[in-house]
Amino acid sequence: MAGTDSTQLDNLPDGGPVIILVQPQLGQNIGMVARAMLNNGLAELRLVAPRDGWPNPEAVAAASGADQVIENATVYETTAEAVADLQRVYATTARPRGMVGRVMTPRAAGREFIEVHKAGNRYGVLFGGERAGLHNDDVTLADTIIEAPLNPSFRSLNLAQAVLLVSYEWYQNRIEAPEERLEAGDSELAGKEELLNFLTRLEASLDEGGFFKSPGLRPVTVRNIRNMFQRAGLTSQEVRTLHGIAEALKRAGGKEE
Amino acid sequence: MAGTDSTQLDNLPDGGPVIILVQPQLGQNIGMVARAMLNNGLAELRLVAPRDGWPNPEAVAAASGADQVIENATVYETTAEAVADLQRVYATTARPRGMVGRVMTPRAAGREFIEVHKAGNRYGVLFGGERAGLHNDDVTLADTIIEAPLNPSFRSLNLAQAVLLVSYEWYQNRIEAPEERLEAGDSELAGKEELLNFLTRLEASLDEGGFFKSPGLRPVTVRNIRNMFQRAGLTSQEVRTLHGIAEALKRAGGKEE
Repeated sequence: MAGTDSTQLDNLPDGGPVIILVQPQLGQNIGMVARAMLNNGLAELRLVAPRDGWPNPEAVAAASGADQVIENATVYETTAEAVADLQRVYATTARPRGMVGRVMTPRAAGREFIEVHKAGNRYGVLFGGERAGLHNDDVTLADTIIEAPLNPSFRSLNLAQAVLLVSYEWYQNRIEAPEERLEAGDSELAGKEELLNFLTRLEASLDEGGFFKSPGLRPVTVRNIRNMFQRAGLTSQEVRTLHGIAEALKRAGGKEE
Repeated sequence: MAGTDSTQLDNLPDGGPVIILVQPQLGQNIGMVARAMLNNGLAELRLVAPRDGWPNPEAVAAASGADQVIENATVYETTAEAVADLQRVYATTARPRGMVGRVMTPRAAGREFIEVHKAGNRYGVLFGGERAGLHNDDVTLADTIIEAPLNPSFRSLNLAQAVLLVSYEWYQNRIEAPEERLEAGDSELAGKEELLNFLTRLEASLDEGGFFKSPGLRPVTVRNIRNMFQRAGLTSQEVRTLHGIAEALKRAGGKEE
């Protein structure tokens, strides 16, 4: 990466896996891999003997803007050379190989990646070519197999999809984003007093309009109405809009009479 | 799905989301969506006003065998019609819309899907077209927004990748696969007696070969060697192979003398 204008690669989180494609075939797929990597904050791509040579203009086109991942990709003749400087290697496979070893899900691997990096180790993940996946000799270079639990009768992932899952699982652990939030746009959430003010005015109007048929049921009906508006998580602006709606309905009723 | 020969769709787990593509453009992307869906056990695809009409041969080609998902896809003129029979609707967006509402990650949504189904509700997820994503009017039809926490400066996912993440997060919750296992291939893991038998024979040979320079250090060195073989999780076959290796090394030494 030295020497290039690497704005796209600045500010990426450190400690992610090196992504290693072994004998990838289509430039389009390599480009989609680069995009999926950058979506998840990864930038280091290695290619082992890409079928159509390198650089490949189709890869750039399919990268949809992840150009610098493509530009910085490095090419190796053999898988052994591509993993030489790494302390830990993972191999992705779509199906059991009858080989002996540790097999983990992308999720468990994403968690382990964080620990492997913390322990000061460089690590990478091998992905096989589109047609047949990794050769068993490549799998033998790995410490651990990553296998996504997928539909057993339709298991084969597109290459970029496989890279996406592994990259995504790492990134989700790396960033620790909140799982849920209430988006309030440009407006602020209404204070409870504003909401209650609207509700009491509404209920008074409903009394006027003869909405509550039975006085005995009034409390439970009021509670249900309040709950409905409460649940909506209204903003101040929306409460003002509701006041306006109620007034407009009353005016419309006045005209009809 | 009635009437079709649906072997591919048999035995899929029930209760998954309906996947709804709103104004998708390229047939190739629709095909890749079908593949990502079936990878994760989903089969119900709805298309709102696909740009290039329907059926679309490019979609079949890109589905890589997920033909029945394509064949069973249904087409609607408007998003409102496509969600009419659903009780809960989620909308996927790549960026905040300045709209008020609940926003959750694919992971949290995947967990919620299970609960929504258990409560007896039908539900679906809206995905926008390739160029601009969902229109705000479509987002308004949804109860909840799903937004994947991705690299903030390179956030836009390919359509099939977005469908993959949502489908995958559901399927991972639906199936509860073990996160890690030790694959022993066709062989059985070695019993501890077999392993210990190999180790004591090895240590005797090492004594003969003068491996242990200092008697005081012998116990800790033995422990380190035992730990190394222990950690490898060997099968019975592999222990037999190790016996053979040790014997062969001794024979080679005998010849050299």
